Amino acid sequence: MSQTFDVAVIGAGPGGYVAAIRAAQLGFNTVCIDNWKNPKGKPSLGGTCLNVGCIPSKALLESSENYRRATHGFADHGIQIQGVTLDLAKMLARKDKIVDQLTGGIGFLLKKNKVTSMHGLGRFVSGGDTYQVEVVDGEKREVIFAKHVVIATGSVPRALPFAKVDNQLILDNEGALAIPSVPKKLGVIGAGVIGLEMGSVWKRLGAEVTILEALPEFLGALDEQISVEARKIFSKEQGLVIELGVKINTVTTTKNQVTVDYEGADGAQQLVVDKLIMAVGRAPNTTGLNLDAVGIKLDARGFIQVDTQCRTIANNVYAVGDVVRGPMLAHKASEEGVAAAELIAGQKSHVNLDTIPWVIYTAPEIAWVGETEKQLKARGAEYRA
Amino acid sequence: MSQTFDVAVIGAGPGGYVAAIRAAQLGFNTVCIDNWKNPKGKPSLGGTCLNVGCIPSKALLESSENYRRATHGFADHGIQIQGVTLDLAKMLARKDKIVDQLTGGIGFLLKKNKVTSMHGLGRFVSGGDTYQVEVVDGEKREVIFAKHVVIATGSVPRALPFAKVDNQLILDNEGALAIPSVPKKLGVIGAGVIGLEMGSVWKRLGAEVTILEALPEFLGALDEQISVEARKIFSKEQGLVIELGVKINTVTTTKNQVTVDYEGADGAQQLVVDKLIMAVGRAPNTTGLNLDAVGIKLDARGFIQVDTQCRTIANNVYAVGDVVRGPMLAHKASEEGVAAAELIAGQKSHVNLDTIPWVIYTAPEIAWVGETEKQLKARGAEYRA
Repeated sequence: MSQTFDVAVIGAGPGGYVAAIRAAQLGFNTVCIDNWKNPKGKPSLGGTCLNVGCIPSKALLESSENYRRATHGFADHGIQIQGVTLDLAKMLARKDKIVDQLTGGIGFLLKKNKVTSMHGLGRFVSGGDTYQVEVVDGEKREVIFAKHVVIATGSVPRALPFAKVDNQLILDNEGALAIPSVPKKLGVIGAGVIGLEMGSVWKRLGAEVTILEALPEFLGALDEQISVEARKIFSKEQGLVIELGVKINTVTTTKNQVTVDYEGADGAQQLVVDKLIMAVGRAPNTTGLNLDAVGIKLDARGFIQVDTQCRTIANNVYAVGDVVRGPMLAHKASEEGVAAAELIAGQKSHVNLDTIPWVIYTAPEIAWVGETEKQLKARGAEYRA
Repeated sequence: MSQTFDVAVIGAGPGGYVAAIRAAQLGFNTVCIDNWKNPKGKPSLGGTCLNVGCIPSKALLESSENYRRATHGFADHGIQIQGVTLDLAKMLARKDKIVDQLTGGIGFLLKKNKVTSMHGLGRFVSGGDTYQVEVVDGEKREVIFAKHVVIATGSVPRALPFAKVDNQLILDNEGALAIPSVPKKLGVIGAGVIGLEMGSVWKRLGAEVTILEALPEFLGALDEQISVEARKIFSKEQGLVIELGVKINTVTTTKNQVTVDYEGADGAQQLVVDKLIMAVGRAPNTTGLNLDAVGIKLDARGFIQVDTQCRTIANNVYAVGDVVRGPMLAHKASEEGVAAAELIAGQKSHVNLDTIPWVIYTAPEIAWVGETEKQLKARGAEYRA
């Protein structure tokens, strides 16, 4: 017999698992449906953030920064060491262990809060007063019913049509976190948060890193006095090669290398690297949701349309996190998840997207919150540095 | 012939030098008077923050954290190192070099902004439409006149009457930054920002550190969920011994050791250490200003009385930074310094003390801003973690 829940949450990333726990805490019989499997083929909660995003990248950022310190400048600090060697396999294993612990921790939290956890792809079958949702796990199909649904299916890496990610030579964020030996030459397409963080990790570990960015400005969202200093530090002190205003023409692979032909400041150029990381942004993930069954529409960029309170057009269906408008940040997703659960409970709740902080975990770290210089100027307000 | 200025700033710490530069940028003929000398007997701008506060402590915090990482846990990260040794003299020399560079940088900034820099203790002689200020440098006395005065004389370490700081055995913040060899046992009185930062530095470098705190709560200003976690990390992971609710009875010194007799949780106790750091807070510094000459009063705690815009009771005399009410933080002083200069120029300017962020540079760092849980609860507002 099919189970009926007060609240079904689709997705167990930082939007979904938080929504599910909050809903359960507010007294709702709640199910959390998630489809993620780790490289060993086991279900693994936490979504992109815990599995192949924030958490493993921060683990490698810390380890690689330690290595950089050990190999550069310890003597200046009065710390004398005889020899340093890198055991990359161990460094990656530490990262994997952290991911295992934290994803396991989410299972524990769901259980502790009496949230039912189901593995599989959540798919709308029908709407009405009660939603019918199918949970598809390979051949296995299970149907559940829910009065309210929270969609928290997150996002996936954007791809360029002419550069197919194989996670051997051309890598997305997942592959970038698991390169088995330090490449001699590494290319990164995209100088955003992910490109800079992953570029920093492998540069510190010894790779020659070149980052190609389509936009003409470096970290254009930031105040200029920060972006100018950051570029100086990354380029001159840390040795990251960063080219802006680049137009990629072709990406071709041979057995062991990737060649990128592009137009740069100096005209047609070629970059040959051992690995290429694609970090050109992320796209909302609505794969398999079958939103048509309940009349939910996507906007022109593929996001689920919601109002300021994360309500979709379908009664009692909310959508939170990367799959809706606003910054694609884990803590934003969590805030929206809490808000959705509280709105379902009839409480007043609100997420102010203007107060979501941003961080890039380079060294130094860069963080900002609120209106930037450009936004202020754009609306004609006075700016004082 | 005596010089006449539009603005005289007394003190070249982060309140004073910033006020002076802003005043000069606004077109005022400005002098900045400062009395600090470094251990070599040379004038050194920047006040407590640059000479014996924020800057050198951060230098040692970074160096000592690097050393702690090198000696603990690098193997887990896949970083194998051989033979780590500490060259403390070099570590301290690096810190001194940073201080020299940055204090020198302030001289450069003052010059670049056409601020006249004078060395000596600033002392009011008389008020009226124009203030007469004497600059006393040993036997040398020079008189200047100024239409506006900004007092930015900062603060000095508080002392306990029965524990005289000699910076050999009993140390203030200055001595704590210059211990020539790692003490085997180190005592710290006060578990505030300075006590925790200095305790962390010497613990990481190998000392056994005991911190005695009079208050019954650890970091009582913080939200409890932060202070509880912080205490766990500092005590259990890092090995700092922290005793709360302590009443110090006596502090006695022998040739090489300091004995602290105190009442703790377990009754009368004795702590014998090689060095003792006094970190029991700071007191406003008004020494030698001769405020009576211009009718400026101190409050019961020794602070110069000012309104919300840093105006003293004397016409055209402002006071900013540690010498007035509000958090004793360098960035607060700088904000007030800018505001004072702008108010002198007839601009609207305002410092909101409720939005000043706080940081403790332990590992992990702890920062907070705005109302804490306790403050919220105290005014009866709802608190949500």
